[in-house]
Amino acid sequence: MIIVLKPNVKEERKRQLIDWLKGMNLGVHISNGEFQTVLGLIGDTTQVDIELIDSLDIVDSVKRVTETFKSSNRKFHPEDTVIEVGDVKIGGGNFCLIAGPCSVETEEQIVTVAKAVKAAGANLFRGGAFKPRTSPYDFQGLGARGIELLKIAREETGLPFVTEIMNISDLPLFEDVDVLQVGARNTQNYDLLKELGRIDKPILLKRGLAGTLKELLMSAEYIMSNGNEKVILCERGIRTYSDYMRNTLDISAVPMLHELSHLPVIVDPSHATGMARMVPPMAMAATACGADGIMIEVHNDPIHALCDGAQSMTPEDYTALVKRIKAVREVIA
Amino acid sequence: MIIVLKPNVKEERKRQLIDWLKGMNLGVHISNGEFQTVLGLIGDTTQVDIELIDSLDIVDSVKRVTETFKSSNRKFHPEDTVIEVGDVKIGGGNFCLIAGPCSVETEEQIVTVAKAVKAAGANLFRGGAFKPRTSPYDFQGLGARGIELLKIAREETGLPFVTEIMNISDLPLFEDVDVLQVGARNTQNYDLLKELGRIDKPILLKRGLAGTLKELLMSAEYIMSNGNEKVILCERGIRTYSDYMRNTLDISAVPMLHELSHLPVIVDPSHATGMARMVPPMAMAATACGADGIMIEVHNDPIHALCDGAQSMTPEDYTALVKRIKAVREVIA
Amino acid sequence: MIIVLKPNVKEERKRQLIDWLKGMNLGVHISNGEFQTVLGLIGDTTQVDIELIDSLDIVDSVKRVTETFKSSNRKFHPEDTVIEVGDVKIGGGNFCLIAGPCSVETEEQIVTVAKAVKAAGANLFRGGAFKPRTSPYDFQGLGARGIELLKIAREETGLPFVTEIMNISDLPLFEDVDVLQVGARNTQNYDLLKELGRIDKPILLKRGLAGTLKELLMSAEYIMSNGNEKVILCERGIRTYSDYMRNTLDISAVPMLHELSHLPVIVDPSHATGMARMVPPMAMAATACGADGIMIEVHNDPIHALCDGAQSMTPEDYTALVKRIKAVREVIA
Amino acid sequence: MIIVLKPNVKEERKRQLIDWLKGMNLGVHISNGEFQTVLGLIGDTTQVDIELIDSLDIVDSVKRVTETFKSSNRKFHPEDTVIEVGDVKIGGGNFCLIAGPCSVETEEQIVTVAKAVKAAGANLFRGGAFKPRTSPYDFQGLGARGIELLKIAREETGLPFVTEIMNISDLPLFEDVDVLQVGARNTQNYDLLKELGRIDKPILLKRGLAGTLKELLMSAEYIMSNGNEKVILCERGIRTYSDYMRNTLDISAVPMLHELSHLPVIVDPSHATGMARMVPPMAMAATACGADGIMIEVHNDPIHALCDGAQSMTPEDYTALVKRIKAVREVIA
Repeated sequence: MIIVLKPNVKEERKRQLIDWLKGMNLGVHISNGEFQTVLGLIGDTTQVDIELIDSLDIVDSVKRVTETFKSSNRKFHPEDTVIEVGDVKIGGGNFCLIAGPCSVETEEQIVTVAKAVKAAGANLFRGGAFKPRTSPYDFQGLGARGIELLKIAREETGLPFVTEIMNISDLPLFEDVDVLQVGARNTQNYDLLKELGRIDKPILLKRGLAGTLKELLMSAEYIMSNGNEKVILCERGIRTYSDYMRNTLDISAVPMLHELSHLPVIVDPSHATGMARMVPPMAMAATACGADGIMIEVHNDPIHALCDGAQSMTPEDYTALVKRIKAVREVIA
Repeated sequence: MIIVLKPNVKEERKRQLIDWLKGMNLGVHISNGEFQTVLGLIGDTTQVDIELIDSLDIVDSVKRVTETFKSSNRKFHPEDTVIEVGDVKIGGGNFCLIAGPCSVETEEQIVTVAKAVKAAGANLFRGGAFKPRTSPYDFQGLGARGIELLKIAREETGLPFVTEIMNISDLPLFEDVDVLQVGARNTQNYDLLKELGRIDKPILLKRGLAGTLKELLMSAEYIMSNGNEKVILCERGIRTYSDYMRNTLDISAVPMLHELSHLPVIVDPSHATGMARMVPPMAMAATACGADGIMIEVHNDPIHALCDGAQSMTPEDYTALVKRIKAVREVIA
Repeated sequence: MIIVLKPNVKEERKRQLIDWLKGMNLGVHISNGEFQTVLGLIGDTTQVDIELIDSLDIVDSVKRVTETFKSSNRKFHPEDTVIEVGDVKIGGGNFCLIAGPCSVETEEQIVTVAKAVKAAGANLFRGGAFKPRTSPYDFQGLGARGIELLKIAREETGLPFVTEIMNISDLPLFEDVDVLQVGARNTQNYDLLKELGRIDKPILLKRGLAGTLKELLMSAEYIMSNGNEKVILCERGIRTYSDYMRNTLDISAVPMLHELSHLPVIVDPSHATGMARMVPPMAMAATACGADGIMIEVHNDPIHALCDGAQSMTPEDYTALVKRIKAVREVIA
Repeated sequence: MIIVLKPNVKEERKRQLIDWLKGMNLGVHISNGEFQTVLGLIGDTTQVDIELIDSLDIVDSVKRVTETFKSSNRKFHPEDTVIEVGDVKIGGGNFCLIAGPCSVETEEQIVTVAKAVKAAGANLFRGGAFKPRTSPYDFQGLGARGIELLKIAREETGLPFVTEIMNISDLPLFEDVDVLQVGARNTQNYDLLKELGRIDKPILLKRGLAGTLKELLMSAEYIMSNGNEKVILCERGIRTYSDYMRNTLDISAVPMLHELSHLPVIVDPSHATGMARMVPPMAMAATACGADGIMIEVHNDPIHALCDGAQSMTPEDYTALVKRIKAVREVIA
């Protein structure tokens, strides 16, 4: 950790700070510059509260030299992590296609869509049983019944599935779920993350609504430091002031997360844009810059089907898109 | 709800949409403009998924005419809500001062600070027992023991206290807590909110890290629609690209929330700025624009005390600030 | 334009507003809903100040039904615009590759790089003669001399070039420039835009540092409404709170601008990311989602060359990237 | 400047970088930590391109120890700057009230409003002659004629006035203007700023639409380094994702700019909120946290007057607000 002091700090104040640091068993390397003093801390600085130091009136700025994320850090784990879900591999050069409806509604619906996306080339399917909705007056999902329907669809297709968990107390219902998703509103629900760190199932962890990459990695750290190393990171758009689109897909997160971490990185263009007609170009972009997988909403609902602009694509459009995704994947692989 | 269609939409597509809307028992008022068709929906539109309609390719835009927040809405409840915590009243012209350390550390610490802020004029005190930390490697709070210490400090001072709850399963520990705080990372933890809607205690609900005002009100709605109407809204700064400060205090949230809702609105300048020296001007600003209370971090820790720039103020500085706050409060009351 | 009034507005106030609107020769269609009144304006509403109406205390919200951008609007001009620069075509299925150094430094430098990027497959080259720098103490570019050097490089290679104009009074120096660039800090320098609307040369218009798509199109409108329809839109990243990258490349701007406008849309991944190693994945993403061209910084400077991570790529890396870009382009074309 | 290298960098690469730095006549202090090497640069680092270094693949991060703003920096000029406009003093404990219509429309209008705001207690008045409008189809101001009308109003009231300049070539028209305003869209129009640095008149410099504080100070630097030290900084709200308000007033900019710089800092709540009814609470907040002045839009236009919610306040409301502002000012002065 490097601490830059303000110019003209009194010797006594400087001394107090250095003594306090030394009291934490840290070595302090003092470098007196032309204008300012710089302190270099040597030893285990993970115990040091960087925000406290940064807020001191004699401190100009402070910087960690070593990153605070460890388990997810590529520096300490150079090879890509490959996560296995049944026969499907995610990460390390393996590309996955996840698709399915926003919410599970009926057995017929989820089975039909699961079959359709399998035919199109998907290797996992998805569907929400518990739905986080901004309004308490909106449909909150089928709950336990939804998970039962997902299992029926798995039976019918042989595809493993992903579904979202919102609440620790629901965990027993997820015993036979293949991949547990943590949604964007729960990315920093630390108690939930800790609990998911104690199970042995892949976790698909979405970036927060307005989360930084560092926060996403620190949330992964909550899972991994509790023992579960099977974390899949998911970019799903962030909140900005940009117009015409629900969120701003931060596509550069894909190569940057790959540089910072060994975990697989997938992209969800459906939530990022909120419009089915914008999903194909974003899915193509995500593939072209190296994402390890693409998760897309696909429906078979006649209401949606009547208008091709909804967030969810039709099975036909998805089938066409998968062909193009695979062609791009061939160029870059 | 008003739906503006794109120009040159085919009659058949238009007809399909209108039929679908009518199928939901909605009246549809069709207005054919020079360039575009506008549909006005009459009836209960709370069931209509605005995002779905907005994403249809034949739709230019869609707008709710009636707001989705109800229990918290001033339109349906014109008088200010006044929340009582022991003898203390919050809202409706009653001004409250909440202060105390970031975390509960020891009995001596919390008792000393509680006495100091009481002497300065605070009418509630605060202290964190469960701490949401970005890193799993940081101090996570004393937990149950912290709550016991807070009760001791209440015994000693007679002041009620506020402390944060992060997890539904901890709820039994909060039975004798005066005000439960929901932190910025849990503002959209809907299961937690629902549960807090079933108890009969005031909830101090912080705005999300990057939350909108509408989202804050919808989160209040999750609590209120489950039966607990004692919600205190708290502005604590939002995430932006602005520099030199931890967050950007959105001070205009105070008068705007007062216009939209009848709930009390308080401001937390300590988390908004992250620097004790910036707390007094922000506390003054919040008071001057009509906040119903100010929550400030105050400590008695010699490590902090050595440098007056930390996020937490000293009791001396807090005492001086309270005098100035009260003088501004007199001008505006 | 649609104006939604607040509930319970007094008849007299409503009448005053309607009379005022009628006074501007607008038809006013009044629709009294269950809760609220909605006014639909018929006629030429371009003269109506939407912000004024939106700010009236009796108005809940107001919405333009017809977009304010006209010349750039695809609704009124469904076919793609194709812009010709010498033999090079941009837009309408024609893909262009623009490359060159950030700043023109010496004749040798610019000629060497221009030759190198031509060999790699670029069909235009770029270089800054006038440089907008945040600090007045930083290098501000070679100015007029830089433009002379760009012409020499054009002579040597036969490639047309792009360079930035910052100031109307410099316009005479740009007489023999092929494409004039407007930088992100000047996107809303309306006097400059108007002046560029009076010349007959292609304008490469960058999105503002924190600009919306609508603002970008309105800035194009400033140029086009003055007579010059040769505008190339350029996405170059926007300012957000996201970390590790200079800006956030808003890749979804590409398909959305294509939907809204008939103008060509290119992407600048060098400024969006600020790191050469992030340029290839972003260039691939931009190509895969349909950009009409990619503009990349390439240098031959030994200082830069020593470290492959700078914002500018080496000619070798650029050559390799162009091959991959072309392969993706083949998939999507 | 401090450069932190990545772990495990090859000696040869490290050596190349150090040699290059030494070649710029900089001393390089090398500190080999447990994990990483840190380079401290000694000498004149203003010539060093921090973005270039930051982007090198062997560099983890880089940090300037000395700030890049000099003339505006309080470190080198501890006393407040006081700017004199006729008899009016701005900064250094002197509080100013600026008010007037958004645009100059007629002689009667500007004279009436100037008299009204003088009666209310304003010591400067304002009015736009040249208007930066997002759309080329909107009213662009009266131009030269507007400035003539402002002079008439000055004659009638004795108050100096502020008006916006957008274009260097208009400068001769501003010879007899008291304070020249640079609007938010021109904050980084560097050629305009340089030119304003060569005149001897106060410049009211608005923060950019999405500008950082550092950028605002660097823009002040463009004016000051050219010889004109009379710069008044103006906070006017920044672009965020927050809802219900046009911009987000960053009130913490006031104390932070006062800490960083000796220049006066005023606040414009009219543009920040876009609603007259939100202006009073924001003006009170700005006063309470120490702003050196408040600039407010006031009109006498019957169209506006009919509805009290417009961005511009009525003279009556402004008169009442000034009384309250002065009462708060007494508390804090």
